[in-house]
Amino acid sequence: MFSPAAFSLARLESKMMRGLEFDRVVVVLVRARNPNNIGAVARAMHDFGFRHLRVVNEYAVPFESARSAVDASEVLARAASFDDVAAAVADCTMVVGTTAVGERALQHPLHILSEASAVIGEELAREGGRVALLFGSEKTGLSNDELSHCQWLLTIPMEEHEEVRHPSMNLGQAVAVCLYELVRSAGVPVVSEDGGRPAVARAGEVERLTELLTEVLEATDYTKRHPANCEEGQIRRLVVRMGVAAGDVPVWMGILRQVLWKIRGRGEG
Amino acid sequence: MFSPAAFSLARLESKMMRGLEFDRVVVVLVRARNPNNIGAVARAMHDFGFRHLRVVNEYAVPFESARSAVDASEVLARAASFDDVAAAVADCTMVVGTTAVGERALQHPLHILSEASAVIGEELAREGGRVALLFGSEKTGLSNDELSHCQWLLTIPMEEHEEVRHPSMNLGQAVAVCLYELVRSAGVPVVSEDGGRPAVARAGEVERLTELLTEVLEATDYTKRHPANCEEGQIRRLVVRMGVAAGDVPVWMGILRQVLWKIRGRGEG
Repeated sequence: MFSPAAFSLARLESKMMRGLEFDRVVVVLVRARNPNNIGAVARAMHDFGFRHLRVVNEYAVPFESARSAVDASEVLARAASFDDVAAAVADCTMVVGTTAVGERALQHPLHILSEASAVIGEELAREGGRVALLFGSEKTGLSNDELSHCQWLLTIPMEEHEEVRHPSMNLGQAVAVCLYELVRSAGVPVVSEDGGRPAVARAGEVERLTELLTEVLEATDYTKRHPANCEEGQIRRLVVRMGVAAGDVPVWMGILRQVLWKIRGRGEG
Repeated sequence: MFSPAAFSLARLESKMMRGLEFDRVVVVLVRARNPNNIGAVARAMHDFGFRHLRVVNEYAVPFESARSAVDASEVLARAASFDDVAAAVADCTMVVGTTAVGERALQHPLHILSEASAVIGEELAREGGRVALLFGSEKTGLSNDELSHCQWLLTIPMEEHEEVRHPSMNLGQAVAVCLYELVRSAGVPVVSEDGGRPAVARAGEVERLTELLTEVLEATDYTKRHPANCEEGQIRRLVVRMGVAAGDVPVWMGILRQVLWKIRGRGEG
């Protein structure tokens, strides 16, 4: 569990680490056709703190459309366009292709994403390491020629459905999942395990609640009607199982006292 | 590194495990406005092997539009529509809200996603455990009333940008990232720390308890004396925080009914 303060601290540390390393991750979209998808990729990058988007397209329309959208992000504004994959990855020390695997005969080593992020993390920790993540077109993925620029391939583990021979994921979702995994595996923020769970009531408070509940059970004749539920130990265990938060003790005490007040007030009135 | 053979085997085992457990995960979209987003959510669920989508909307247009899209998935065809959150989560033993945190004063325990998936995995490993994951509208997230149905909150760690006070993520991407994390962490063996804890009440039972407690608060004039404690969401959160064991539900219902019987019986006598 997280306390807000510890959580903020973990975010801050994580942010500093990312500032150092994730600035050397480059997302490369190859032949993306849909401007909305390019925009969604830029938004995911923005969300997770990545800044370098490169687009490889034979024709400029999708990229220009995405850039002119009203909600275009800073990532998109700074994105660069390249004529081919070679140029787009020229300054990178590691080039990773993404694939849905399918039936394609693989000529590359393949890592599933959680493994891949560890390998990428090692490269980023190396001085001067710069990693390109290539995503192919929505319809066809990366071609064999484009894959030939890659040292190895990454795949997101997906459910295999009988009706679909080549599973593939929405481009914006695939990028979001990959970047999330990079952030997750890099950070693994270490915070106390139960800092955020509200403090539990002390045993003395639990005991006072038990006593008050017992009074209510007697005043309402519940003890007469359900004697089997009303041994002292049973009522206490019932209250202990509530795991009452310390802050809730006064509320429950108030409710039980009000019940007694109502029953007794009426009785005397 | 993975050999293709080892990779296939890992996928097969993972798939079998998912077949057992992920069938008890329910994705609930509350007030989603954009049919494309609903479609994207369904697609991410399909990709990762989740089947149960529920939609809570005051008006049916977005859901019906999404369902009529040409590429609508089987997940969407099977999706169910509900009038309110209470009905949508009634059969679930754990109800988890998603939030971008932001400035909202949190009244719930908060887990970041990687922690959250472990907690969810434990609940799914429990016999009869069923987990609802709630996602709010694209613009506003979940309201306080909607959050009051949740036992705790989940957040995806995101980069904080100075220019954006309330970070939020594209709905389809957020769901994809959450489901990916469930799948990823399911591959990591989980040893439950509290496997002996009794089964927790379903949300529908918690809701009935909330209603009955509300009746008691009104019948005893507690609501008049302490109106600040008695908003609907506050009473629900108080009951949700109890974490009532399934076996204790009839006992608490019996106690509350007895209180009402006593007060009303005296009143009439």
